[in-house]
Amino acid sequence: MDKQPMPLRPLYWDNNHLKLLDQRNLPGQEIWLQLDSAAGVADAIRSMAVRGAPAIGIAAAYGAALAAFQQQQTKSDKWLAGWQKDLNALAAARPTAVNLAWALDRMRCKASENATPQALLEEAHAIQAEDQRMNEQLSAHGASLIEPGSTVFTHCNTGALAASNPGTALGVIRTAFAQGKIEQVFATETRPWLQGARLTAWELAREGIAVTLLVDSAAAQAMAKAMTREKPVWLIAGADRIAANGDVANKIGTYGLALLAKHHGARVMVAAPSSTLDDSLANGQQIPIEDRGPGDIWQAEWGDIPPGLQIENPAFDVTQAELIDVIVTERGIRTD
Amino acid sequence: MDKQPMPLRPLYWDNNHLKLLDQRNLPGQEIWLQLDSAAGVADAIRSMAVRGAPAIGIAAAYGAALAAFQQQQTKSDKWLAGWQKDLNALAAARPTAVNLAWALDRMRCKASENATPQALLEEAHAIQAEDQRMNEQLSAHGASLIEPGSTVFTHCNTGALAASNPGTALGVIRTAFAQGKIEQVFATETRPWLQGARLTAWELAREGIAVTLLVDSAAAQAMAKAMTREKPVWLIAGADRIAANGDVANKIGTYGLALLAKHHGARVMVAAPSSTLDDSLANGQQIPIEDRGPGDIWQAEWGDIPPGLQIENPAFDVTQAELIDVIVTERGIRTD
Repeated sequence: MDKQPMPLRPLYWDNNHLKLLDQRNLPGQEIWLQLDSAAGVADAIRSMAVRGAPAIGIAAAYGAALAAFQQQQTKSDKWLAGWQKDLNALAAARPTAVNLAWALDRMRCKASENATPQALLEEAHAIQAEDQRMNEQLSAHGASLIEPGSTVFTHCNTGALAASNPGTALGVIRTAFAQGKIEQVFATETRPWLQGARLTAWELAREGIAVTLLVDSAAAQAMAKAMTREKPVWLIAGADRIAANGDVANKIGTYGLALLAKHHGARVMVAAPSSTLDDSLANGQQIPIEDRGPGDIWQAEWGDIPPGLQIENPAFDVTQAELIDVIVTERGIRTD
Repeated sequence: MDKQPMPLRPLYWDNNHLKLLDQRNLPGQEIWLQLDSAAGVADAIRSMAVRGAPAIGIAAAYGAALAAFQQQQTKSDKWLAGWQKDLNALAAARPTAVNLAWALDRMRCKASENATPQALLEEAHAIQAEDQRMNEQLSAHGASLIEPGSTVFTHCNTGALAASNPGTALGVIRTAFAQGKIEQVFATETRPWLQGARLTAWELAREGIAVTLLVDSAAAQAMAKAMTREKPVWLIAGADRIAANGDVANKIGTYGLALLAKHHGARVMVAAPSSTLDDSLANGQQIPIEDRGPGDIWQAEWGDIPPGLQIENPAFDVTQAELIDVIVTERGIRTD
């Protein structure tokens, strides 16, 4: 992976198409997909070639721009109706992260101003640039709360592959580490997709940030041990959707880690851009939780799934607001 | 796997050697190893071809018998000194489960009575038969505590492949299910070795016991949901070693699940034969915890482990006695 320039990025616009790093093959292989249609982008989102709430929002925005160029080419000035359908397909690619819907709403607003496809592309560029700025700001806010000597636990991948550099929760960790405040980072591998092992541990290690990788279920014992150092311990996680009351949907396992943090006396920080806030939902129970089916859990070489065996594979869970000490966005620090 | 007769078994003595089901290939392939030496048995234990605290104790006992035959063949009546060394190698194969040391102590006691290799083989048979009887008894004790309508969570594999049929924690679950008291079983996949998916879920499903498989980190949300049914919820786990004060070493993740159970108002049962009790250790902090290295966690196709990335892979954790509502052994029910 030495060929890839620092910092990492999940996607970029290249002339007239979207280049997207296929995260399913990381860290072993660096394969860039070249996408020319909204359907291709929707498929990349659905299949998790790109993942991470902010990154799928940005990808969807570019998908909407691609759709506009394509529709205009075939339908001339009557392109808008077909384009709306393309956007619906993009929106349906994954249900939980609200950033996807948020980015598409932005594109729809822009289109309602009689924007050209080129103007829609500029809007996608703006969304991407804003995401980076928001992440830099929220990372600074979050890092300001971290005390010297801290141990940090993080889950899934919330870095420069899940969002614009420096990332969300991993942006806070990167920033606080650069400030000399973090002594150790524990990354959970994050089954079933192993974002923590394949992306986070690899992403931090290549930047020289000391990180220890654990299976998800080893976090409890590691947290208990970290508490014996009598220095601050944080769980810092991202978010896929934050309801009006502060309940947070995030990668499956976040809820359990938050409970373990509270039990052990560690604090819980959620870091996300404001595009993750969904004030239209009163609480986390209303957030749709995607189930990704048995394929990630039952391996093909084990033979057929035995009759009678149910496999639940929720991609997310909901952490109640009262378990979260602080939510940081680019707007600031929210502790209510 | 239809060829294998019910019930499952992890090993059996066949004429003059030990036949051992290689659990690393389950459930895809049923491969039986034929072992003729203590070194072969030690290697099978170390490499987890056989696993589960009671099963490795039984395997070690047969390994001791094999060693006796082999030593006697080469050293005639001076076989005992070499045999003691073979036993030390067996004892060192895995450090955490005390059943291994317990079984070898039994074999040493028998040898101190001037036992022949054949008498040592009979002792190994006796250990195996006793394990089955103990498991039947502890399963009955445990099942007597389960109320109709219960939901049960279990971790790792504690069934007829980890111990003699019906198993320990899974023996309780099998027995209570047969009594019509269990409505649903959740099995966690148990990273990194996936005993829950490859063994427990498969083992229960093939017997028609309704089971739902989850990634480890999905247990918290599933437990919260199970509590909303307003019927009893149990976490039932096995043990690799139980200290004098009731602290329990068991598969990594048990401690976190026990904390989640207490938070949600579920009860925690540990089921193990008395060969798992180690009154020589005052508490769980004294139990040696095996770390199995990075190979189970970092996959070869990801390339080399990045410099600076630490990987911790503890195979077990310790659950404090106060988190455990009840320990059942063949002797009865212990709630202190």
